[in-house]
Amino acid sequence: MNKFAIAIHGGAGTILRSSMTPEKEIEYKLGLKNAIMDGDNILAKGGNALDAVETAIRNLEDNPLFNAGRGAVFTSKGKNEMDSSIMEGSTLMAGAVTGINNIKNPITLARTVMQKSEHVFLSGLGAMEFAEKMKLEFAPDEYFFVQHRYDQLLQAKKSDTVILDHTVTNATSKKGTVGCVALDVHGNLAAGTSTGGMTNKKFGRVGDSPMIGAGTYANNNTCAVSCTGHGEYFIRSVVAYDISCLMEYKGLSLKEACDIVVHKKLVAIGGEGGLIALDAKGNIELPFNSEGMYRAMKKSNGNLYIGIYKD
Amino acid sequence: MNKFAIAIHGGAGTILRSSMTPEKEIEYKLGLKNAIMDGDNILAKGGNALDAVETAIRNLEDNPLFNAGRGAVFTSKGKNEMDSSIMEGSTLMAGAVTGINNIKNPITLARTVMQKSEHVFLSGLGAMEFAEKMKLEFAPDEYFFVQHRYDQLLQAKKSDTVILDHTVTNATSKKGTVGCVALDVHGNLAAGTSTGGMTNKKFGRVGDSPMIGAGTYANNNTCAVSCTGHGEYFIRSVVAYDISCLMEYKGLSLKEACDIVVHKKLVAIGGEGGLIALDAKGNIELPFNSEGMYRAMKKSNGNLYIGIYKD
Repeated sequence: MNKFAIAIHGGAGTILRSSMTPEKEIEYKLGLKNAIMDGDNILAKGGNALDAVETAIRNLEDNPLFNAGRGAVFTSKGKNEMDSSIMEGSTLMAGAVTGINNIKNPITLARTVMQKSEHVFLSGLGAMEFAEKMKLEFAPDEYFFVQHRYDQLLQAKKSDTVILDHTVTNATSKKGTVGCVALDVHGNLAAGTSTGGMTNKKFGRVGDSPMIGAGTYANNNTCAVSCTGHGEYFIRSVVAYDISCLMEYKGLSLKEACDIVVHKKLVAIGGEGGLIALDAKGNIELPFNSEGMYRAMKKSNGNLYIGIYKD
Repeated sequence: MNKFAIAIHGGAGTILRSSMTPEKEIEYKLGLKNAIMDGDNILAKGGNALDAVETAIRNLEDNPLFNAGRGAVFTSKGKNEMDSSIMEGSTLMAGAVTGINNIKNPITLARTVMQKSEHVFLSGLGAMEFAEKMKLEFAPDEYFFVQHRYDQLLQAKKSDTVILDHTVTNATSKKGTVGCVALDVHGNLAAGTSTGGMTNKKFGRVGDSPMIGAGTYANNNTCAVSCTGHGEYFIRSVVAYDISCLMEYKGLSLKEACDIVVHKKLVAIGGEGGLIALDAKGNIELPFNSEGMYRAMKKSNGNLYIGIYKD
């Protein structure tokens, strides 16, 4: 059997050991484990990378710990506005949505846009109307109401700052997004990203997560990438496609490309965050320039790895 | 005095000599001339590339002939939904908006997002609220109501197809977007793009025009690019940044990079359209793989060139 591989992330940022309780740490690791094993099971049965990516991200979206789907943060208007995108490396087909509410699994909507519409990217009410027509699962406001996220909004409003994720105190600033990259036994790559944005963000702000090329990219000739971090810097740097171009045009390895983009280019402009990347040979990189990044990876011939802090 | 240069486009597509009247052709050429000379005047006085780009695009937006600003097409809901983006090559700062109505000059809103907000990309009502706060000029629905565009919508609804621009008959399919790239005497590049989208498009569809990396990109080390065409293919190909990467990572000239992206990569996936590109040495390329592209260019040491069809 050919090899397969999968990696996921649950957001990057200032995640310090000192501000994490042992209980919380176990919860996060369990969440990551459940999500990656859902995707891995699909790949192990010979399933395709796109299904593995969608399934792992749905799992993370359903987990209120992560800033996507159910755990999405509140905008300055007190609403959840979610974004997501997905891309298939064999066809370069892609789908994305921004500014949606009450969709239980935004990643599934992105995939439906890719496969069932003539467009790549839908926003706001138009995206919601499409979701309704396609009979996607909706969830009421209460489903998305997670108390500690709402407390964060009140906290952020008090200080009038934008908080990058479900940070309550200065000690635990975290950029929240979830993502997955996968390689299946057929040699196909796929990548997906889903996010609930930034706490107290401006209504209507679009980050890098729904942007093909910035937050998500997949191409069988190079790699699959999903990003997490301060989205504005990731958009300006076209991060996900930059990794692919450095490999394709400059002949760099996945590791060399990730090092340059995450540790040099993003750092130079002040862009905090990280990404997960996987090449067509099954190599995985999980670089970040922040204090920590919730992450996990598994190869067909290897053990499960789960990390939160810098090693 | 150092050299400067500017190029603009007014959309690409099936523009055939046989379906154009001499009067219409003069109108289009005059529109292109007025817009590029507005930008050129700024550059000739030592003004900066960003001002030249904004000014030339405002001129095109104000001209009902072009599918941006005043001449924006109607969505399937009978509304105008406009997108635009702008990027500065010296700082890699960028601004973009999608799904806005009643803003007289979307390119100015994109620039305001870049310079006055902490975000890069704003959508829909959030973008409109920001515009109001920043006191941008609004215009009533009547301002945007151009009879032949509305006729196109009715025509498209009848056949239930998406028409890429202000096409009424099969003979003149045209992808409508306007854009500008400029190099100023200080050696700075800038690029901007503005569009009214596709006739009868799905409400909420986002094309490549507001996407940094896909429809617009500028970097003083490489080039400034603005695209026009079937947006979905341009998003999946991250076209504007691809030109930049081929130059930076593979050492290609602007011309070589444009040839590969427009005449090979886009053609291979069926992506019809074109782009304008300008490098830091003042070289200009205006490639398109469609029947025609409304375009103009002028260098500090050269004559004005205006083109519509293949030469």
